[in-house]
Amino acid sequence: MSDRAFIGLDIGNTRLTVGAALGDGRLLFAEERPAPGDADSAIPVLLEMAETALGSVRAADRRPAGLGLGFGGPVDYVRQVTRQSFHSPGWSDIPLAEVFASRLDIPALLDNDANAGSLAEALFGAGRDRRTVLYVNVGTGIGGAIVIDGSVHHGATTSAGEIGHVVVDPGGPPCNCGKRGCLEALASGSALERMAREAGLALSGREVTAAAESGDATCLDLVARAARALGLAIANAVSLLDPDIVVLGGGVPEAGEFWWRPLRESFGTYVVPQAQGTPLARAELGYRAGVLGAAALGMRAAEREGLRA
Amino acid sequence: MSDRAFIGLDIGNTRLTVGAALGDGRLLFAEERPAPGDADSAIPVLLEMAETALGSVRAADRRPAGLGLGFGGPVDYVRQVTRQSFHSPGWSDIPLAEVFASRLDIPALLDNDANAGSLAEALFGAGRDRRTVLYVNVGTGIGGAIVIDGSVHHGATTSAGEIGHVVVDPGGPPCNCGKRGCLEALASGSALERMAREAGLALSGREVTAAAESGDATCLDLVARAARALGLAIANAVSLLDPDIVVLGGGVPEAGEFWWRPLRESFGTYVVPQAQGTPLARAELGYRAGVLGAAALGMRAAEREGLRA
Repeated sequence: MSDRAFIGLDIGNTRLTVGAALGDGRLLFAEERPAPGDADSAIPVLLEMAETALGSVRAADRRPAGLGLGFGGPVDYVRQVTRQSFHSPGWSDIPLAEVFASRLDIPALLDNDANAGSLAEALFGAGRDRRTVLYVNVGTGIGGAIVIDGSVHHGATTSAGEIGHVVVDPGGPPCNCGKRGCLEALASGSALERMAREAGLALSGREVTAAAESGDATCLDLVARAARALGLAIANAVSLLDPDIVVLGGGVPEAGEFWWRPLRESFGTYVVPQAQGTPLARAELGYRAGVLGAAALGMRAAEREGLRA
Repeated sequence: MSDRAFIGLDIGNTRLTVGAALGDGRLLFAEERPAPGDADSAIPVLLEMAETALGSVRAADRRPAGLGLGFGGPVDYVRQVTRQSFHSPGWSDIPLAEVFASRLDIPALLDNDANAGSLAEALFGAGRDRRTVLYVNVGTGIGGAIVIDGSVHHGATTSAGEIGHVVVDPGGPPCNCGKRGCLEALASGSALERMAREAGLALSGREVTAAAESGDATCLDLVARAARALGLAIANAVSLLDPDIVVLGGGVPEAGEFWWRPLRESFGTYVVPQAQGTPLARAELGYRAGVLGAAALGMRAAEREGLRA
């Protein structure tokens, strides 16, 4: 098995990244290019990047066994097609896995980039060697994913992991999704920005966090309120799912103890006693999560092919 | 495969039940006896009941392939031992699966009776042919289980599925578990009893539901409040887990539309848009769930043995 390698393509809104990884997540090769404006221009570039990666794998005497695609927009995982990109045209209903599988003669698998990144953290990052991983991404918005035994749990409508739209406070502030009091409306970067505005401050979420870091009392209070809401939502998710670890990624978890302390306190207050010890850990892979996650999808593609063979 | 049958032993606080089932959940045989007062007296009775069931399976020209034990108290699933019974002595740390496997020469598997019953509903009841089933039991207390691809998701500390102790209202009434505002403190039979007391009525949960059924305005309001809290908690669980179906068992879901309507409305208000269509269904197996769930554990025991062989 050690001779196999996996190609990962991370299809972002502004950047395309390709990587070749071994089964343990070590990167053999990586390359990045700016994303062309639409799907018709991007796909040939992606195919060329994949060819280059395949060449580098063969040059290193490894066998390319699978290719994964992490797409920066909604994906129909069951049908293995892209749904759309919110940032560039032409991505509706493209059977991306099939395109790459047939053109490059390699098993291929497509998922959205958030699920791919979660899979990378679960396999190679903070969640490695853990059976059940709850991944929570806290940035401008809040997303998440559940990884069980090395696979993303997609659920019936492939919307599993939507912890950002769990309702924490039914009478709370309106959320972008149309509901009220969702976690995202209480604890994301955008929520911090709104809370700051309500407190008479014109600051972005990042600026609120920075001001809290330097000791501003109002911002410290806003951050603590957001972190406590997150702690409650994660506690409830842990009571239900009982994961081996919760991994927190995105920009916000890079904050210091002024964010982590209220988060942990709130988690401890609300979680079921048996799961008090569940670790809350910072994501470890950073920007590499995208391409490693795509390569991990390539591993899954190779496994599926193996089961069929 | 059609020649195989599975033995299930449901070890309740007052009753012991044995059954023999086919792989599709049809019962070939069932027998019930009163439970002796302690483990030392119960185990020989259970062994005798299992022998009788094995005899009936062989008499029907079927091959007994596995035996499952559903225990009415906490179980250490990883170590396959009983932890304790809250009702009868002597059950601490008994390796029940091993006892039956070695004495009867058959693969055996132990779980608690709630997980076993959920498994039965997922495989043979309202959740059959569904990949992910969220089971919620609403009685005096509120319990639950997650069944994925035909197996109970136990989680890291084997406490997964604890939807009764998800915190719905952080400032809410105290719960038996020591926290406040847990679902169980807002929507269970006991919660209805407490809410009635607060409204000046000395009624049990069952009596509140009966009074609501016959049109009592106060009790209708209490039931609706409880059902709305349940709808919110189920909505959040569905947003996170995206199951194919939610199955509601226990006494309370036998109530009529005066309970189901506010439950469904609340669920629809709070769940993520993609999962609006998730069915909320009544459990179908009733009292048979216990013994069929134990038999389903026997199926899992046979599979595990097959993997080892």
